[in-house]
Amino acid sequence: MHPSTKTPLSDDLKRLVGQPVSAIDTPALVVDLDAMLRNLGRMAEFARKHEIRWRPHAKMHKSSAIARLQLQAGAVGVCVQKTSEAEAMAAGGVHDIFISNEVVAPAKLARVADLAYRLAAAKGRLAIAVDSMEGVRRLAQALNERRRGAEAGMIDVFVEIDVGQGRCGVRPGRAAAELAQEIRRHAALRFAGLQAYHGKAQHLRTPQGRRDAIAGAVQDVLETRRMIEQDGQPVPLVTGAGTGSMVCEAASGVYGELQAGSFLFMDADYAANERDPAQPAFEHALFVKAQVMSSGAQHAVCDAGHKSHAIDSGLPRVLALESTGELEYLNGGDEHGILKPAGGNRRVPRLDETIWLIPGHCDPTVNLHNLMIGVTGGLEKGRVDKIIRVDARGALT
Amino acid sequence: MHPSTKTPLSDDLKRLVGQPVSAIDTPALVVDLDAMLRNLGRMAEFARKHEIRWRPHAKMHKSSAIARLQLQAGAVGVCVQKTSEAEAMAAGGVHDIFISNEVVAPAKLARVADLAYRLAAAKGRLAIAVDSMEGVRRLAQALNERRRGAEAGMIDVFVEIDVGQGRCGVRPGRAAAELAQEIRRHAALRFAGLQAYHGKAQHLRTPQGRRDAIAGAVQDVLETRRMIEQDGQPVPLVTGAGTGSMVCEAASGVYGELQAGSFLFMDADYAANERDPAQPAFEHALFVKAQVMSSGAQHAVCDAGHKSHAIDSGLPRVLALESTGELEYLNGGDEHGILKPAGGNRRVPRLDETIWLIPGHCDPTVNLHNLMIGVTGGLEKGRVDKIIRVDARGALT
Repeated sequence: MHPSTKTPLSDDLKRLVGQPVSAIDTPALVVDLDAMLRNLGRMAEFARKHEIRWRPHAKMHKSSAIARLQLQAGAVGVCVQKTSEAEAMAAGGVHDIFISNEVVAPAKLARVADLAYRLAAAKGRLAIAVDSMEGVRRLAQALNERRRGAEAGMIDVFVEIDVGQGRCGVRPGRAAAELAQEIRRHAALRFAGLQAYHGKAQHLRTPQGRRDAIAGAVQDVLETRRMIEQDGQPVPLVTGAGTGSMVCEAASGVYGELQAGSFLFMDADYAANERDPAQPAFEHALFVKAQVMSSGAQHAVCDAGHKSHAIDSGLPRVLALESTGELEYLNGGDEHGILKPAGGNRRVPRLDETIWLIPGHCDPTVNLHNLMIGVTGGLEKGRVDKIIRVDARGALT
Repeated sequence: MHPSTKTPLSDDLKRLVGQPVSAIDTPALVVDLDAMLRNLGRMAEFARKHEIRWRPHAKMHKSSAIARLQLQAGAVGVCVQKTSEAEAMAAGGVHDIFISNEVVAPAKLARVADLAYRLAAAKGRLAIAVDSMEGVRRLAQALNERRRGAEAGMIDVFVEIDVGQGRCGVRPGRAAAELAQEIRRHAALRFAGLQAYHGKAQHLRTPQGRRDAIAGAVQDVLETRRMIEQDGQPVPLVTGAGTGSMVCEAASGVYGELQAGSFLFMDADYAANERDPAQPAFEHALFVKAQVMSSGAQHAVCDAGHKSHAIDSGLPRVLALESTGELEYLNGGDEHGILKPAGGNRRVPRLDETIWLIPGHCDPTVNLHNLMIGVTGGLEKGRVDKIIRVDARGALT
């Protein structure tokens, strides 16, 4: 039910490539491609050093073009959260996809099965997470119904354990081991290991807080792995981690794959974490370009509100420019942002001034936009290099 | 820069029309069309009774199909907040449009001018708000550049005064009167009156709080109108009001036009207002259909998070069904919602159960979706009647 976003780019957009940043109409989601590529290089280097696979989460950027860049930089594939996201990535030429989430609706599982066969035919691979017996059985049934007598192990199946997030996942230990056994009973499924993602650990502000949380997750993984191995089954891979905690999972010796996604763009919420010395120094690469459209004695108003950026993890920060000085962004509703001078600054921005916002949370911010404008040479003096489609935008099902 | 969303509907979507509600894949934005039409009728009746124009805000539904329904029910036109929204409405056959917001960027003003001439050619009308001398002059310049020697008064211009919102708008009184004089100096512009919208009044919880706020706004309007009239110019219309405060503006004898938009769908935030006895009893007509995709001992997880509904005005409420009992929705992140039994209920929802969410805020929720599924006959036993395009979704510029 996700309508295609493959409409042709308008002539205005095509003409924008090569233009200076000042030509970008506001509000617009802008990617500093230089910063993004530096972040990508830092992640690749980190993974090499720790000899760990990385499968960045595409729920963050929702763009098959960016996913392909990540694959070129050494990622083994991408994670997605939804069946329709997986379909959008596959349509965009990404062939190694992990739906790191549970799918239980039969109509969706039929699409999952279809995609598993299509990716296999393209020498790729589909994986999925499960957290219930019913989910395993329905998945197997969907694959069997899709094609009788297919070769074994058409889809990789990870048992998700709840390591502290309190959301999806079975309890670590026996319940997980029983799911692994159930997976083994279905020829179409291959038990691929454990998903142990600790979402709540990502924004614990101190490195020690995150280390303690992941140390607990590691204990859960070890206990579960031991039980599955006692049942005579190996645990090929443990996958998890986000941008906040990834240094802990990478150092654990237990996790074999990192799912971090936000490192590529960073956001104000991740930047508010106290950085672990082991963590690469990821930079902000995602911005909302906005413009002052009303200016008074005490405050100015820009043309970007929370239809331009998500505020679930706090309001955006304003990039302090020489021209504007330090500014605070206050909630002005869906279409407006209220700007007040902050710090020692006393100057209210004037009509037309450009404002760069650093979104509080990159994932749902990207999901508001059909396109991202890729810029090289810096936000102030750079040029538009490319238009990036958010081809899984709104892919909710 | 807003790409067309006029891609053809997929075969799956076309087949959905006529199907029972159970066939709607989740998560999906669903409109209870019966409730929506009752709300529309209540608003039309209210406006007739108070002999006041209504120009509902299309920033809420972002759909030209719904805008046309509103016009058929007696609305004089629609408000929009952005130039690209106006363009989308015009492309969808809506020809009386008020951009109830300031536009100052010359590139956007060129589009505004173009649209003003196009709507006039279609026997329609464009209006816009201003709050600065510079804004008035640029608007006039854009119209003059678009077509030399055009007939006078090609666009209606409202002076926005700040009546307590603390966002856009000039101060009531002399500053506003000077803007009205400036508008008069430009033949292409027609001074149409005052915009006096009090955003902060909308969610004051008590009727008395809202009455007091709008009483203050009325004083500001009266003072400003007197000054403009002293300058020898009439004030043809005062426009403003939202769903929260509309009974106050309607009773004021000063406002001639209501901009309320949310009444059509209602949301959890407006429903939390203590209802003024004069206010029509608008019903919830907008829902996110979700499904339980993970279920444990203490809680269940549904497949709708804040990529499916906006949480700027609070988390969604769960519609209490006989099947599920009372449930509380807790934040599960971008793609998940955590459900816990609430009130006297002790039952955790099971896998596959359908959950209906009432979004906290309808405007940014609609803006997350390309489509709304229109249902008749009720949420539980009804059928899909039509697919409604959100054709101004993502129209930010």
